[in-house]
Amino acid sequence: MLLLIDKNKAEPIFQQLIHQIKYLIENGDLKEGFQMPSSRQLATSLGINRSTVIRAYEELWSLGYLDSTPGSFTRVRKRKILKSNPSEETANENFWENSLVNNFPEQIYRPSNHISDNYNKNINFHRLEPDVRLINKKSFSICYNKAINETNYNIFGYCQSQGYKPLRQVIASHMRLHSVNVTVDNILITNGSQNSLQLIFQAFVGKDDIIAVESPTYSMLIPLARFSHCKIIEIPVNNDGLDINILKKHLKKNKIKMLFTMPTFQNPTAITMPQNKREELLSICEKNSIILIEDSIEEELKYFGKVHLPIKSIDHKNIVIYLGTFSKVLSPGLRLGWIIADKECIRKLTALKTIFDLSTNTFSQVLIYHFCNLGYYELHLRKCLRAFRKRMKVALKALKQYLPSEKASWNEPLGGFLIWVKIKINAQNINIEDHLSKFGVSVVDGKNFFIKPTNETFIRISISNCNESEIEEGIKRIGIALNAIN
Amino acid sequence: MLLLIDKNKAEPIFQQLIHQIKYLIENGDLKEGFQMPSSRQLATSLGINRSTVIRAYEELWSLGYLDSTPGSFTRVRKRKILKSNPSEETANENFWENSLVNNFPEQIYRPSNHISDNYNKNINFHRLEPDVRLINKKSFSICYNKAINETNYNIFGYCQSQGYKPLRQVIASHMRLHSVNVTVDNILITNGSQNSLQLIFQAFVGKDDIIAVESPTYSMLIPLARFSHCKIIEIPVNNDGLDINILKKHLKKNKIKMLFTMPTFQNPTAITMPQNKREELLSICEKNSIILIEDSIEEELKYFGKVHLPIKSIDHKNIVIYLGTFSKVLSPGLRLGWIIADKECIRKLTALKTIFDLSTNTFSQVLIYHFCNLGYYELHLRKCLRAFRKRMKVALKALKQYLPSEKASWNEPLGGFLIWVKIKINAQNINIEDHLSKFGVSVVDGKNFFIKPTNETFIRISISNCNESEIEEGIKRIGIALNAIN
Repeated sequence: MLLLIDKNKAEPIFQQLIHQIKYLIENGDLKEGFQMPSSRQLATSLGINRSTVIRAYEELWSLGYLDSTPGSFTRVRKRKILKSNPSEETANENFWENSLVNNFPEQIYRPSNHISDNYNKNINFHRLEPDVRLINKKSFSICYNKAINETNYNIFGYCQSQGYKPLRQVIASHMRLHSVNVTVDNILITNGSQNSLQLIFQAFVGKDDIIAVESPTYSMLIPLARFSHCKIIEIPVNNDGLDINILKKHLKKNKIKMLFTMPTFQNPTAITMPQNKREELLSICEKNSIILIEDSIEEELKYFGKVHLPIKSIDHKNIVIYLGTFSKVLSPGLRLGWIIADKECIRKLTALKTIFDLSTNTFSQVLIYHFCNLGYYELHLRKCLRAFRKRMKVALKALKQYLPSEKASWNEPLGGFLIWVKIKINAQNINIEDHLSKFGVSVVDGKNFFIKPTNETFIRISISNCNESEIEEGIKRIGIALNAIN
Repeated sequence: MLLLIDKNKAEPIFQQLIHQIKYLIENGDLKEGFQMPSSRQLATSLGINRSTVIRAYEELWSLGYLDSTPGSFTRVRKRKILKSNPSEETANENFWENSLVNNFPEQIYRPSNHISDNYNKNINFHRLEPDVRLINKKSFSICYNKAINETNYNIFGYCQSQGYKPLRQVIASHMRLHSVNVTVDNILITNGSQNSLQLIFQAFVGKDDIIAVESPTYSMLIPLARFSHCKIIEIPVNNDGLDINILKKHLKKNKIKMLFTMPTFQNPTAITMPQNKREELLSICEKNSIILIEDSIEEELKYFGKVHLPIKSIDHKNIVIYLGTFSKVLSPGLRLGWIIADKECIRKLTALKTIFDLSTNTFSQVLIYHFCNLGYYELHLRKCLRAFRKRMKVALKALKQYLPSEKASWNEPLGGFLIWVKIKINAQNINIEDHLSKFGVSVVDGKNFFIKPTNETFIRISISNCNESEIEEGIKRIGIALNAIN
């Protein structure tokens, strides 16, 4: 075994040893089972310390190159690399397909490219995630430094399943600004709103249950409802939110267990339900013992018009489960949302959360706690409000300028990031996403938000990560693309 | 309305305005509906800029204190704070209990204090989370700075559901050290091993299925299996891992769909299955088309004896699902684990992951990618290996010294953090956790790891977050506590 040690090299001697022995093994010069010299022998022959050899051997052992048994020689390991090609097929072709649970829905969401590592060069009206350019990285780093130097709390350890208590405290204070009066016991921190919905569905929605959703509704709610195999009733959304009369009609025939609504800047229609309708909807749910899920992902982002109170703020009977999130104003990548509900409901959801993933990311929670507690969240929110109030105005102006009213119509949102555009020309036979993409703009095809297929064509525009000039340019491109149809 | 503006104060004027108006509203001096002076009027009367007043009004509006309608006066908001006491009861006492899905298991895990914000003063052999004192915070901060200054990737945005690709790449390289040959397509990043297990159970284990687990087994697997309502067969663990003969007997009577094993440093027994038995177990699973879950949470932490290859390394038929995690060596608070399996299996699990929580924390993934890619993970691992090889020796020595063989027995683990101690004196009538806690040491009662109750008394000792002197002191206390029984 030929090893060359150069004591003048910058590379430490034990590393030189490791590299050379690895090379000899990988090259086949040292065969499996080859008996290595003892550390004493090798140290003497190379004129180095024995501890250096021991260290190199230990590492080669932990890297899997050497095998050592106490009281015996160190040998080149008999690697049973029996499987070398990762792409081999499973023996039985449909093994995994056939292994799925009986009720695994066929129509389950298949991961698309929409949450992708690859940004393309289109103007992106597709993503509903906030503009990262508005985040003040300096203030974020101040919070990181506070978190990493935390001495009273192990930010690397598990967190309480219900969530980091100081974060629940700042959320409780924050909710008071929206007139929602709760304590830390009413709050469960989750990995974002999708995780909140998952917990709620798995705890409360079984295959014999009937749930009501708005139509159109949040697209990722649909596979979740399908996974639970419940029956889904779609309640159309009018200009002032879901059609209460249709809901009442359904209630004459059916026992509805749960109703899902987004009263503020509904996704995808951006419609806001007025206060009186909120109160009426709550009364109906109270009378019929319906669990009311109030998803308020963009609650903070009110630009124009009167303030509305969350339904949760008037929920005396504790039947409303309110969903909040840091994803839409700050960052979806931190995966932090929260559920506000009756204590007993929170206890049950926390139990489920515990068995599903033990706890939410401690690090993110401590970071965001500091971000809120130091006032950065409030500053960031105001910055977003100022920026997006202007951006929404730009978007609405551009729509008027570039989309003639005979080709498209839309409601003017009071806040949020979304504009729901009805395409009035016949576009049923084209893939609207692909068509617009050819003109350099990405949107979401409206059909994703309906359970029963619709004959109408809609697109959902999200201005959340575009600045003013991108918004104007993107809408201009939509106008050109619509002109190119027929 | 009396407002006092002091231009010499450090506090900006608009902030002074906000504070004073808030105070007047909260104090009831300005009643709901009170018509605020126009911004022009107020600016003139106070001798300040109109834009300052507008800014203050805007903020008070966004904070919910003022109400403003375009073209109309700004008024103190009619806050419908209808619900002021968060602790009010739900109208129907058992509303949430009765709302649970039909098959919601009664015996579901109830969040205990074991994952708690409160550390107590006991020597903690309870927690299975790594010693935070071994983490080099400086190298962690280097990774944070790399991540926050990332220009090609939005670390605040959503991640691909399957996980950050560069992280999957470093995991694939890392697995090659264990002779597991996979590509990024075989890997799904999850929120830790519990989340991995949840996805696997929900995809593949239905209520008519039979699964086999080791007895004793990972305690948090039990509620997950109960939630799926499958039938569970317990296979006893011998000195060399699960009893293959008993497994074979069961197979004569039952079709087992999935088998869960922890071949390396099994939790809780710390037993390692020898290579030949691994191969035999795999053959049995292949013959019977059993999905083999190989949970290898402490794979890296081998201190003594021969190297073993993961079963996944010899899995030619792609029926093994391998679970890895960063929780046991680095940090459970970052909630990062991974699943390695057949591509088709990964596709199905990714679909489920997407509908359950869209994606794993982007920030954590990018941080840990850098931590691995810059070599810090490897350094950290070696540091842990060195520290815990010593610590385990200290623990085993202390056990011999303080626990007489007529009172307790245990196996000597080859690695990991756990020691499984059988209490040989009659302790069936005492709560062993409470008893030891009185003597200043926390452990886990062995009964948590069995599905069918056992007559024997075991305790699980985890040395994962104790140093040498804490370990010695803790075991000494266990000895004293055992002497105090009877």
